[in-house]
Order: sequence, then structure tokens, then C-alpha cells
Amino acid sequence: MSQQLKLKIVTPERLVLEELVDQVTLPTTEGEITILPEHIPNWKEKFGYGGFVQLQHHKPCCANMILDDGKFFREIEDNCWSAEKRIEECDHHHVDVQVLSTVPVMFNYWAKANDALYVSQFLNDDIATTVSNYPDKFIGLASVPLQDTSIAIKELERCMSNNFKGVQIGTNINNLNLNEAQFDEFFSACESLGASILVHPWQMMGQENMNKYWLPWLVGMPAEISRAICSMIFGGVFEKYKNLKVCFAHGGGSFLPTISRIEHGWDCRPDLVAIDNANNPKKYLGKFWVDSHVCDHKMLQYVIDLVGAEKVMQGSDYPFPLGESIAGELVRSAPIKDSEKEMILALSAKAWLGL
Amino acid sequence: MSQQLKLKIVTPERLVLEELVDQVTLPTTEGEITILPEHIPNWKEKFGYGGFVQLQHHKPCCANMILDDGKFFREIEDNCWSAEKRIEECDHHHVDVQVLSTVPVMFNYWAKANDALYVSQFLNDDIATTVSNYPDKFIGLASVPLQDTSIAIKELERCMSNNFKGVQIGTNINNLNLNEAQFDEFFSACESLGASILVHPWQMMGQENMNKYWLPWLVGMPAEISRAICSMIFGGVFEKYKNLKVCFAHGGGSFLPTISRIEHGWDCRPDLVAIDNANNPKKYLGKFWVDSHVCDHKMLQYVIDLVGAEKVMQGSDYPFPLGESIAGELVRSAPIKDSEKEMILALSAKAWLGL
Repeated sequence: MSQQLKLKIVTPERLVLEELVDQVTLPTTEGEITILPEHIPNWKEKFGYGGFVQLQHHKPCCANMILDDGKFFREIEDNCWSAEKRIEECDHHHVDVQVLSTVPVMFNYWAKANDALYVSQFLNDDIATTVSNYPDKFIGLASVPLQDTSIAIKELERCMSNNFKGVQIGTNINNLNLNEAQFDEFFSACESLGASILVHPWQMMGQENMNKYWLPWLVGMPAEISRAICSMIFGGVFEKYKNLKVCFAHGGGSFLPTISRIEHGWDCRPDLVAIDNANNPKKYLGKFWVDSHVCDHKMLQYVIDLVGAEKVMQGSDYPFPLGESIAGELVRSAPIKDSEKEMILALSAKAWLGL
Repeated sequence: MSQQLKLKIVTPERLVLEELVDQVTLPTTEGEITILPEHIPNWKEKFGYGGFVQLQHHKPCCANMILDDGKFFREIEDNCWSAEKRIEECDHHHVDVQVLSTVPVMFNYWAKANDALYVSQFLNDDIATTVSNYPDKFIGLASVPLQDTSIAIKELERCMSNNFKGVQIGTNINNLNLNEAQFDEFFSACESLGASILVHPWQMMGQENMNKYWLPWLVGMPAEISRAICSMIFGGVFEKYKNLKVCFAHGGGSFLPTISRIEHGWDCRPDLVAIDNANNPKKYLGKFWVDSHVCDHKMLQYVIDLVGAEKVMQGSDYPFPLGESIAGELVRSAPIKDSEKEMILALSAKAWLGL
């Protein structure tokens, strides 16, 4: 790029630099980051039934995530569990702060609620330790056993009183949508605790019928996010809890590109769509955040046009391959205003997190 | 709009008008149109098992589509079966020619192949009669029982020799994806017969878990189209049959807005994605058509930028409520070049149909 950029480096503590430069690699606050403990107990043995994910450290700096029936899920690297490795990569990518949350496959919504609570506590405590060891580098999001709302709320309360800033949840909870009445109290608790919510796709619709070509990730995930946003809008969740701070991963998936189709559905069949909330779904554009992980400058511009740069935050899906290999690169190289870059790379996430 | 437009009216037969005007309502060749016979036999009685859709004419100009177990599906109006009513609406909306195909719920891929053939023949013969009665007004697309490829090919051959221009198929065939080897011969036949293919969403992924708020239509349908395009690309269908003329409904659903995510998946996990076709999925942009039914000028522009106006054709989802209430209005009112409007409203569909 030939034009001069205003580089402003902002940490959660202070403004550390402000100047004009020719080229920059801007520091970022990450909107979507996953981390795992290095060792995960044998939950199957502990709880007496299977279905949980374990780590098998089969070579240096690598581990296989395997289901406890021996089925291979994916190989991960030590940036999934090592805070030091992550800090090294952050420094290399000029990332100031990472927001940590677990891998969605660890939600365990399907398990007995108290067992899932036990696992969540294990994972949350691991994140809490990492955040406490490196308070300038990491911010924590909890995971909670949403198959039981009251247990989930208690764990969220515990985490929020232990320096967490919010919670990551799935796009559906055992195929129940986020508008279901049983989640009302949870959203109410998030609102009163000031807990930011990251909604991440998981348990993708249709995956049983499209397991070739990674289609659950490439087709199912964008649809999952749209399902979650539509459910929260049409179920009136944003109306009931007006101060909820929700960020949807992957640029909001297919929701924003199809918002006018969705609006048209609301308009032409209110008897089907507007049964729990009379408002036009476009009313909610700009009321929630999405991350910037859309892999494409044109789509990034489209998303900014719809929700405003102040509702788009840097998201990298780090450290997984479908994520950004150099966090922030899409935004830094985008033909958008410097002020929009600064917003997306730092300020939007700070506003979402209430920092 | 204040600028002058060049209005060019092209019918399948000839150029009928070319002049500059202040405001126009351009005639269109429809990319996606559905039609039904006025009366549908009692298939359950004929075949000895149920699951088929029937029409119940419960009031003038209206009918209920009901499953033969009595379950209500939707109410339709006489523009679903009456050619004269459709012509009246075409004239009112300045539509020159409609491309007719059946309603996806009539695919009956789940039924015994010979029974589904019987129903398809009934529907195709009805369309053939309509086309034959009004050859300047209607063009026919067949439907075929794809649960049996060889039977489907025979019916396609029969239709193509009876003045049909192509065939409408679903985004999946009983949850088999379009890359499955069993469909190869069908695509090969389409290519050698010169049959244009319209791919329309149906049997939407995830519908069993999101029946509120019309989400199968608002979330599932865009995902279905992406599933179909990804399956045809990654399965190598476009490589094997390079002269296939395929149009995907609803602007290609969520495929185009997520194409860079899909490309990134292909790039970072070729072991999962590029197993049957080594090419970058973006290679296929501009190789297939999509319709213009995206409900939104910004998204229409995005789609044009990706595939070119010559691969976008007017589609209205007529006569259903989620369709365009005045066919062609989105395109006519779009801030795009006159030449692009002409392309989308007439020439793209003519090229797709080989006219």
C-alpha cells in the first residue's frame, strides 16, 4: 500500500504508540481464539460412559484429539495448549491480546449436566490459570453446560467472579435453538453479569449427509450461525435482553448475505416468522457483533456496510487451519479506512468485552 | 432514476424494440418458475402407499396442497396451475416468457422409481400441453425420478424430444449429494442432450430441528444450494462434463458469499477437500449460472462481480410468497448498467437455454 497509515497501538492498559507509518502490522485483540489444557483426564473412566474427547500426545508439539472410543477427530499443535507457544506466535503476528475460549467439541452439551459441569470447570480453571499467569496477554471466555440452565448460570457466575469476561456457546444446544424458553434465564444472567457472549458454530446441521469434502465446515458452519442469529432475533431474545453483548463468529455466517431474503420472509409470511417478535430483522443490524473472519475483502466490506465497523471485530479461528494463518492480515490488507482497521483490530472487541 | 436507459425488448423470436427511455419496466425471461396441473390424481390410491402431495380445491382460484395423510402443506393460488392466469400476470408484470418447472415437493425422489416416473410423466405432460398451447409464452423444464438414473434418463430423453429445454433437479437426491457416482450418467445425458439443468433447494438440511420461524426456507435453502454447488465442484462433475449448463436458484444461496472461505478450506485441507478434483473452486466462477433472486441490490452487485452479469439470470420464485411479487423488479431498479439489466433480464437465460 502506498498511502500513509496512522498506527495506534492500544493495549488494555494504555495507548502505547501513535504515529504515521508507511506499512504496519497492527496489534490486534482477537475475537475468536481457542485454547486447550495440555492434558485432559480420561473422562470416560471417571464418568462411566463415553463420547468425550481426549488428547493423545503422539509426537513433540503435537497431539491427536481422539474420541474415547478411539475414533480420530483431528491433530492439533502445541499452540492449542501452550500459553508460551501462543505468546510466541502472538509476538510474531503482532497480536497484543488474545481472547481465549475452548474448542467447541469440548462443549459436551450431550453429556450428563453435572459431568459436563465438571469438564467445563476443568477447562475454565485451565484458562483462568493462563490468564492469571499472563494477565496482559490473555482474556478468558468460559464454557458452561447449557443442557442445564441453572447449573450453567452458576458456573458462569463462578467464572465471572474469577476475572472471565464472558462465555462461548454453541449455535444450538443439542439441536435446541437459542430462542427456546429454557435459555431465557441464561441470557438474563449474561446481561446482569455483563458477560459477553461468543456464539460459535458446532454440531452442524446436515453433517450426517455431507461428510465428504469437509462440507460440515464449509457449508454447515455458515448456516449454523445464520440459524443462531435468526433464532435469537425471531425468538425475541434481543428484545427481552437489550443489553446483551453477543458476537457471532465467521462474519455472522450466511446471515448477513441473506438478510434481505430473511427480511422478505418476515414480510411475506409473518404468520410463520413474526410469531414471537413483530420487528423487522434488519432492526438488529448493528445491535450485535460479528467477527472479521470472512476470508475476503469484498465480503468484509459488505459486512462493514451492513453492521458498521464498530460491530466487526478481528477473529482468526486461531490456531486451526481454516482460520487466518497470520491473525489480522485480512483486515490489515483490506482497502478500508484506517479508522475502520483500528476499530476492527482493537476497539470493537474492547467495546464488546466492556474494557 | 434520473438517467436515461436504453430499453431493448428481446423475445425468443426477435428484437422487438430498442430505444432510450426515462423509465422502463423491462420484459423478462424467467429463470425459475413453477407450475402445477389443476388436478392431481390420488396417487396413494393408485400406488398403494402414501406420502404424495394432492391438491384440494377448497375455494375459487385457490387450493390447498395436502399430503395424502391429510397434513396441510401450503395454500396455493390458481397462478400455480392456470396458464391463462399466468399469462395475465406476465402481461401485467411485462414478462415475455416464463420457464416452467414443477414445485420441488413434487420431485417424489423418495417414492418407488416407477411410481415417481408415473407422476413425473403426468406433470411433464401437463407442462408440455401448456407449452404447446402457448409456445411463445412458455418454455418447459422436466422433472425426472432421479432415485433411478436410467429411468430418469429415459424420461429426460422423452421430454427433450417433446420440446423441453432442460430439467429441474433437487439440491440433493434423498440426501445423496450430486457428486455421487450414480448421477454421472445422468449428467452425461444432460450434456449430450443439451438439457439445461436448474438446481432448486428442497428437503432442507436441518429442517427437523428448526421448524419455527420458517428457518428451513430462510436458513436451510441457501445452505442447500451451497451444498449442491460444492458437491458438483469438489466431486469433479463440472470437470467431467464441461458443457453442462447448470443454473442454481436463489443467487447460488450461501455459496458465493462464502466462496473465499470454501477456497480457504480447499487450500488448507486438500486432504479433505481436493480428493476428487484438484482445482481451486474459484475456477468454476462464471462456469455456471445463478438466478437473480437475492432480494437485495448490494448482494446482486456482489454476485455480478463474482460470476459476471452473463451468468446471472432473472429468477423470481414465482408464484410463491418468498419470490419476487413483481418479477424483474429487483433487477430493473438496481443501480447497474443497462447492458447488465438486459443481460440478466433476457440474454443470460437465453444462453443457458441455448436459444
